[in-house]
Amino acid sequence: MIVGRRQTEKPIRWAMVGGGGTSQIGYVHRSAALRDRTFDLVAGAFDIDPERGRAFGVELGVAPERCHADYRALFAAEAARPDGVQAVSIATPNNTHYAIAKAALESGLHVVCEKPLCFSVAEAEELKRVAADKRKIVGVAYGYAGHQMIEQARAMVAAGELGDIRLVNLAFAHGFHSAAVEETNPATKWRVDPTFAGPSYVLGDLGTHPIYIAETIAPHLKIKRLLCARQSFVKSRAPLEDNAVTLMEYDNGAFGTVWCSAVNAGSMHGQKVRIVGAKASLEWWDERPNQLSFEVQDEPVRILERGMGYLARQATAEDRIGAGHPEGLFEAWANLYGRFAVAMEATDRGDRGRLANLRYPDIDAGVEGVRWVEACVRSAEAGGVWIDYR
Amino acid sequence: MIVGRRQTEKPIRWAMVGGGGTSQIGYVHRSAALRDRTFDLVAGAFDIDPERGRAFGVELGVAPERCHADYRALFAAEAARPDGVQAVSIATPNNTHYAIAKAALESGLHVVCEKPLCFSVAEAEELKRVAADKRKIVGVAYGYAGHQMIEQARAMVAAGELGDIRLVNLAFAHGFHSAAVEETNPATKWRVDPTFAGPSYVLGDLGTHPIYIAETIAPHLKIKRLLCARQSFVKSRAPLEDNAVTLMEYDNGAFGTVWCSAVNAGSMHGQKVRIVGAKASLEWWDERPNQLSFEVQDEPVRILERGMGYLARQATAEDRIGAGHPEGLFEAWANLYGRFAVAMEATDRGDRGRLANLRYPDIDAGVEGVRWVEACVRSAEAGGVWIDYR
Amino acid sequence: MIVGRRQTEKPIRWAMVGGGGTSQIGYVHRSAALRDRTFDLVAGAFDIDPERGRAFGVELGVAPERCHADYRALFAAEAARPDGVQAVSIATPNNTHYAIAKAALESGLHVVCEKPLCFSVAEAEELKRVAADKRKIVGVAYGYAGHQMIEQARAMVAAGELGDIRLVNLAFAHGFHSAAVEETNPATKWRVDPTFAGPSYVLGDLGTHPIYIAETIAPHLKIKRLLCARQSFVKSRAPLEDNAVTLMEYDNGAFGTVWCSAVNAGSMHGQKVRIVGAKASLEWWDERPNQLSFEVQDEPVRILERGMGYLARQATAEDRIGAGHPEGLFEAWANLYGRFAVAMEATDRGDRGRLANLRYPDIDAGVEGVRWVEACVRSAEAGGVWIDYR
Amino acid sequence: MIVGRRQTEKPIRWAMVGGGGTSQIGYVHRSAALRDRTFDLVAGAFDIDPERGRAFGVELGVAPERCHADYRALFAAEAARPDGVQAVSIATPNNTHYAIAKAALESGLHVVCEKPLCFSVAEAEELKRVAADKRKIVGVAYGYAGHQMIEQARAMVAAGELGDIRLVNLAFAHGFHSAAVEETNPATKWRVDPTFAGPSYVLGDLGTHPIYIAETIAPHLKIKRLLCARQSFVKSRAPLEDNAVTLMEYDNGAFGTVWCSAVNAGSMHGQKVRIVGAKASLEWWDERPNQLSFEVQDEPVRILERGMGYLARQATAEDRIGAGHPEGLFEAWANLYGRFAVAMEATDRGDRGRLANLRYPDIDAGVEGVRWVEACVRSAEAGGVWIDYR
Repeated sequence: MIVGRRQTEKPIRWAMVGGGGTSQIGYVHRSAALRDRTFDLVAGAFDIDPERGRAFGVELGVAPERCHADYRALFAAEAARPDGVQAVSIATPNNTHYAIAKAALESGLHVVCEKPLCFSVAEAEELKRVAADKRKIVGVAYGYAGHQMIEQARAMVAAGELGDIRLVNLAFAHGFHSAAVEETNPATKWRVDPTFAGPSYVLGDLGTHPIYIAETIAPHLKIKRLLCARQSFVKSRAPLEDNAVTLMEYDNGAFGTVWCSAVNAGSMHGQKVRIVGAKASLEWWDERPNQLSFEVQDEPVRILERGMGYLARQATAEDRIGAGHPEGLFEAWANLYGRFAVAMEATDRGDRGRLANLRYPDIDAGVEGVRWVEACVRSAEAGGVWIDYR
Repeated sequence: MIVGRRQTEKPIRWAMVGGGGTSQIGYVHRSAALRDRTFDLVAGAFDIDPERGRAFGVELGVAPERCHADYRALFAAEAARPDGVQAVSIATPNNTHYAIAKAALESGLHVVCEKPLCFSVAEAEELKRVAADKRKIVGVAYGYAGHQMIEQARAMVAAGELGDIRLVNLAFAHGFHSAAVEETNPATKWRVDPTFAGPSYVLGDLGTHPIYIAETIAPHLKIKRLLCARQSFVKSRAPLEDNAVTLMEYDNGAFGTVWCSAVNAGSMHGQKVRIVGAKASLEWWDERPNQLSFEVQDEPVRILERGMGYLARQATAEDRIGAGHPEGLFEAWANLYGRFAVAMEATDRGDRGRLANLRYPDIDAGVEGVRWVEACVRSAEAGGVWIDYR
Repeated sequence: MIVGRRQTEKPIRWAMVGGGGTSQIGYVHRSAALRDRTFDLVAGAFDIDPERGRAFGVELGVAPERCHADYRALFAAEAARPDGVQAVSIATPNNTHYAIAKAALESGLHVVCEKPLCFSVAEAEELKRVAADKRKIVGVAYGYAGHQMIEQARAMVAAGELGDIRLVNLAFAHGFHSAAVEETNPATKWRVDPTFAGPSYVLGDLGTHPIYIAETIAPHLKIKRLLCARQSFVKSRAPLEDNAVTLMEYDNGAFGTVWCSAVNAGSMHGQKVRIVGAKASLEWWDERPNQLSFEVQDEPVRILERGMGYLARQATAEDRIGAGHPEGLFEAWANLYGRFAVAMEATDRGDRGRLANLRYPDIDAGVEGVRWVEACVRSAEAGGVWIDYR
Repeated sequence: MIVGRRQTEKPIRWAMVGGGGTSQIGYVHRSAALRDRTFDLVAGAFDIDPERGRAFGVELGVAPERCHADYRALFAAEAARPDGVQAVSIATPNNTHYAIAKAALESGLHVVCEKPLCFSVAEAEELKRVAADKRKIVGVAYGYAGHQMIEQARAMVAAGELGDIRLVNLAFAHGFHSAAVEETNPATKWRVDPTFAGPSYVLGDLGTHPIYIAETIAPHLKIKRLLCARQSFVKSRAPLEDNAVTLMEYDNGAFGTVWCSAVNAGSMHGQKVRIVGAKASLEWWDERPNQLSFEVQDEPVRILERGMGYLARQATAEDRIGAGHPEGLFEAWANLYGRFAVAMEATDRGDRGRLANLRYPDIDAGVEGVRWVEACVRSAEAGGVWIDYR
């Protein structure tokens, strides 16, 4: 149970790059990082417009001289201070993630980065190399993965309650971009422009979320090969897809499907994760994150509820309020930021034991997401053929 | 509204082949055919054991001399009577459908046949040829398609309420055969034996149902090519699959997926049909057949209920009880049998007008089902590759 | 499992009074009685207009000379035949039930009667007396009570799976009469006219259904006193109520509530039964009758499904189709008619053992329904005060 | 849309009384108040044990000298500082609310108080008098009322979308205290002890929540008289009830019911609010707070979703994240604290216009809650009789 006590020894001195103005995602990062005083927001380069960024930072309580024009200025200035920032979160358009993350790591900062980490596996592995070299962590903003019932699912799979995993059935298929909303909505516009969005739209923007959740729940499953078909139902989005289906074969014989869509008209989110084993299945839906459906063949379906005593210990460790009350996405993010902070402190003091028992979307998760998108795009571009995954 | 008045001029004289003893499916056929006195059960070859079949028929009120040892004897004897049967329903194992249906048609009988009609498109087209030649109908037992909300969905798509159809998302994925239940359960055993079941298990047994429903709802969509991956999670079932995923490209650019499974542990039926258009989606689930979810992008989801005045005329024509009361699978089947009877009468009197306005799973639907399974198996056998559909 | 074999030795010769023309309820009775050839419809007085009634009967296959002008003619003529009817179902307006049922019993017929049996406890007890005297059964058309999951609930309460029963929470609250639809809809008009409907509208028309279901599930609970408040939101319906709430204290200290409404705008049926015990609760909803929610405190909610092997024996005895397939209201009625037939045969041959193990809505259930309505009306008329129940 | 910009000019200097240690409710208050830097936590009397309270405060970042032994010391010391607190939140056991709130108001502080405000209407009105006298606000912690869909419901009722309100159907009926958990759980123990809990348990602890929500949604409804029956199913809780049903007649002829329970075994929360009008109904459930069911008679049920463009302006004003993402209880509380802060500032500067357009659970809501509990208890104690409400 979290009741506001800081999980770290001290608040981590923290900056943001991007996330200013009316950015929703910036607010989500700040709400999560500041929730339990785990981080202190002391610097930033919040906006592509330096003046606007400074005004925004000051309003957030950041000293004006620590509101910088861009990330380079930020990292340089902070590196020169004895009380300079220890960590930075990156909430800028996709095409800038790689350069900013790399610069941050090279400046000796821990990094929290929006997904996708970058546009190619080569870049991702370079980030991994730099992070290892600098002994810094990279946390990736797979926010949904912070919901406690994901931990419950992971614990149940580990305990063998499902039997051998046979099927992984994933979807993140909303309908908000059924029409060409990007023509009038700038927040959508960059997502369908390869310059800013990278090689994919929904595969990267949506699909990587349930992919990471599935890796979390069933970490022993390794993709052997995959096949992807993608479509651009709003024609002007081509070559980027607004719908895609990926099939996956795993090493152990399991089979997976992922449906990513922004044109699933009328669907709110449609992020659903179903893991099917030889004995039982688990199903989770991000719009009802406090519940987990546990379906043992030949028994009644059971609806597990967040916060209950029958859950695994790790599924209740991050509860902020009793069972029955709904926690939402902000708590999921706060859980991740809490773990990021613990990971940063443990890394800084070289506490491998603490790190070994800590699960969070780390650099490997970031690399995997990029690899998965890259493979999907490669398969789709080749006409929807099977390709080896590694 | 159906309140028991016969839709046909007279009851149709009717026989069954198979469906005896404790056969559930035989009971479903009889319940449907006899529901509103549309058919009279006057003859049969109910069981592979003639004695048992005769006893069963007599118990059903059939004259003992019209309970025959096999379908050949049945067709011959009935053809010789002035009051011989006009139609026959076939509820035997899959491998016998073709021969019995062909013999029935050649004997001048209308046929209602369990799916799959047969094992190959060549056979199916031969049946179609004979039926045309004999001017008889073949109705296929896609029972779920008789639910009234399918008519509602069809009417809404036809009226353009969804906009252009983009996605067809189908599933029939239960969990009842997660374990090798066929080792002890004879009713499952033949389904996983190619000799009796044909070239597929779940593709034919399950997948053809939502495929036909999708064809009904969006008849203008034509499959251009498809790709299928199939698995045998219970190893002894190979070469027959207990799980399969099929991807489909349609002529108009729409994209489809079908998930068929008998190893989706804990799922009861999992037959879901989601049709996504540029403006809105429809979703239907066979376990809650009285509801239809209508999801217009940027509007609240609407739950349409069977029997309500806001539905299309053809969606309420077959109501047997007011809105709010649940109708179930037996009514769906009775709806189909009612239409079969009307089609038989209209065919016999050459009433093309009546036939033109009547929708039921006919020989073409039967052919399509066989074609779809054949194509899926061909793709899967080739390693899960795209193949042209026609 | 029912697969169409008759549960009785012979079909029972059966007539209907009322239920002709486009009557939905008449169709429901016939569908149920004829479902598994348990009854033969051989006579009737189907309509207040004799000619129309005869034409209707003939269309149903009844001999014209056995289609009578009214119930008196029917009972007299049939009593004079060696093959006269053995049982009659009464589906006429409420105000006629008593006289017809009494005449039927006095003519030596078993009776199936729509609820309410009559308008006063005195009348109900007179019917009970005559039935006992004539050794005939009276079955009451509490159709929802035939759903199999009600049997499951009963078995679980009997087995102590809920602990001591504390709360009985009942509702049957639809919205179809939110407006004064009776002004244009004759099928509603008589329901709000005390001459035809009796002393109540929704209490009798709706409330008696969940009351009987609760008695079935927890037969040991006896109402000690109750209090009822009723309202006529459509003013012209007064003194008959279109909404009512009843509170009940039971002998064992349990507490109950019943909400009856025809003005619960937007609700389809809203018939829900929740039984709360010291350890667990059960909840059932007539619009999803194949499911039963079993909620053990401190455990995950379990959704029990009709037809599954984990259910009690008596909850699967009447399955007509496997789990997962939806059965609907017609099957529930058919279950009751099956039990009525068994009860008739057992009564005629004096088989007390068979009767002792047979649960159906009998004359006592009919009396109880009338008693409950009478008590509710008495309390409401007195200003909503507590009154002793017996 | 809230993206972290403070709604007030400056953070309000704020203290807490109670809420220390592992108190969940204290954490909820702090999470809400500090969410968007609306309040600064600068002082407190967090614990009945002064040392423990000081340690706790320091850990929260409060200066040690501003961590006080009790509320009297806190109010005195802060009143003496130029930068003393402006507002205090009270999260202590029920029996202390009155004295602390009164002292706070008399010290010139704005107050946020846990419900119930006090134990009698006389006390509540005294608090109201002092607050008016001191020109300070009292906010009451009806946290669920902060969910945005409550605003949507209020807007729809005001716009006449339901027609005249007829029925108010309320429940807050969980099962967590089905057993005598207070014997081992101190957090439950005081709730069932009249010394600490006051004259009721579930009526005050649970029932006042949906009562306030109903007042918010349909503010024109005024209770005319009510009747309450209460029970103590766990005997040792008497005279305090663990279950209660209240019936209410409103001035306009509407009828209401409230079911409060802590022994509804297996239910998580069961807080449901259904408002039925002549044309349509609204239903909201606190466990799925992002949805609102809108049920127009003779139209399909519509599921409204938080964050969507079709909602009323005031229902989206406090969104923190886009539609589809679940917000939870913490956001609802943060919404209330945001309004409390705005109300405090507006009150301090005498801005009546701002206050007139601001809806929050104020002193009147607090008085009403106490009045409702008092009336319920009076009715129940008199044997469950109707009593006039004012």
